[in-house]
Amino acid sequence: MAEKQAVCIMSGGMDSTLAAYLMKEDGYDIIGIHFSYGQRTEFKEHTAFHAICDHLHVTKRYVLPLEFFKDIGASSLTDTTVSVPTEGIEPGVPTTYVPFRNGIFLSIAAAIAEKEGAEVLSIGVVEEDSSGYPDCTKVFIESMTQSINLGTKASTKLQIAMPLVTLKKEEIVAKALQLEVPLHLTWSCYQNDTVACGVCDSCRLRLKGFALANILDPIPYETAT
Amino acid sequence: MAEKQAVCIMSGGMDSTLAAYLMKEDGYDIIGIHFSYGQRTEFKEHTAFHAICDHLHVTKRYVLPLEFFKDIGASSLTDTTVSVPTEGIEPGVPTTYVPFRNGIFLSIAAAIAEKEGAEVLSIGVVEEDSSGYPDCTKVFIESMTQSINLGTKASTKLQIAMPLVTLKKEEIVAKALQLEVPLHLTWSCYQNDTVACGVCDSCRLRLKGFALANILDPIPYETAT
Repeated sequence: MAEKQAVCIMSGGMDSTLAAYLMKEDGYDIIGIHFSYGQRTEFKEHTAFHAICDHLHVTKRYVLPLEFFKDIGASSLTDTTVSVPTEGIEPGVPTTYVPFRNGIFLSIAAAIAEKEGAEVLSIGVVEEDSSGYPDCTKVFIESMTQSINLGTKASTKLQIAMPLVTLKKEEIVAKALQLEVPLHLTWSCYQNDTVACGVCDSCRLRLKGFALANILDPIPYETAT
Repeated sequence: MAEKQAVCIMSGGMDSTLAAYLMKEDGYDIIGIHFSYGQRTEFKEHTAFHAICDHLHVTKRYVLPLEFFKDIGASSLTDTTVSVPTEGIEPGVPTTYVPFRNGIFLSIAAAIAEKEGAEVLSIGVVEEDSSGYPDCTKVFIESMTQSINLGTKASTKLQIAMPLVTLKKEEIVAKALQLEVPLHLTWSCYQNDTVACGVCDSCRLRLKGFALANILDPIPYETAT
């Protein structure tokens, strides 16, 4: 058993899955954390999380229901009365932005890391090839790292690994293939949970990555793009 | 109606209640936030929150259940198999510390503030006369302020008010009396929800404040100290 532990936030999507595999590659024992926050594809992501953890032999898993996200709403991912944009990525912060989601996720994951004595926490944020969410930037994660270390016990010294933050989507696909990440088990679509829509921002970014990497995405899509 | 809004984290205790009254005094419309996180005195605190909000004429209230704190545990407040210390405040971080609780609370409150367009968020942290929690310090709250502003929309500019951070408990009692804060509605005890124990750290700090302010605490105690 490895001596060092990494708490990995794993949505079931391609990016956070690769991040967890990279932590494993670096020799960490993985503690998997998955949040069910009332997002449209909650069931599918939850299933993907467990399948990926099985593949990665993650035995310690936290699946935390965060129902309060529904009470807050203010996002097309958690409020089904607001449509998910499908016309392509536009400048600005899209309606799929969930207010301070990664701040909340990192705070809860930090509490778990402190409890477990983990020294690293991973998150699969991607800054460039992204939807433009403010909570997916390097400068934000670095600031949260400082906040977490100030707001926890002196003996808790936590790093936050964001190994994908500067990568392009095609680099993520290539790296995932190299590490034999089970991409067929991952799910990225914002709105469907059986056949990916192919037209939401998340599908578009994923498909762009596979296209530029000259690889066929193994998951089913309803719209060829 | 005032034009500016403050989101106030209100536990139902003396400190966060005074913080909310101070925001009201400063001319803010108050949005009250209360977290039920599986703490021992959850029911009592929840009742206190609503009674205080009624007194303060707060119409917009968020009561968010955070059941995942029970899954994390690692605190005598959320894990009833661990005793709450009653022998007096000792150096170091006590077992009542809930890992990164205020980081989690501030992150969720920030999401609500962003949704509501509030410009200030208040928290009743007290640094000196405290149990020594790392997430109750000025330096931590200032760092979280920076993190929140980096991780939310560019149009979201949030300040965090911590008006009690440098106060002594007797100053808090005196200020509360001056503002006619309904201290009889507040609840601070960590372990009981009908008659306060008088011997947990929170009761001891509260009673010390009343004693030094030469005021009789209006809530019932089972142990005179």
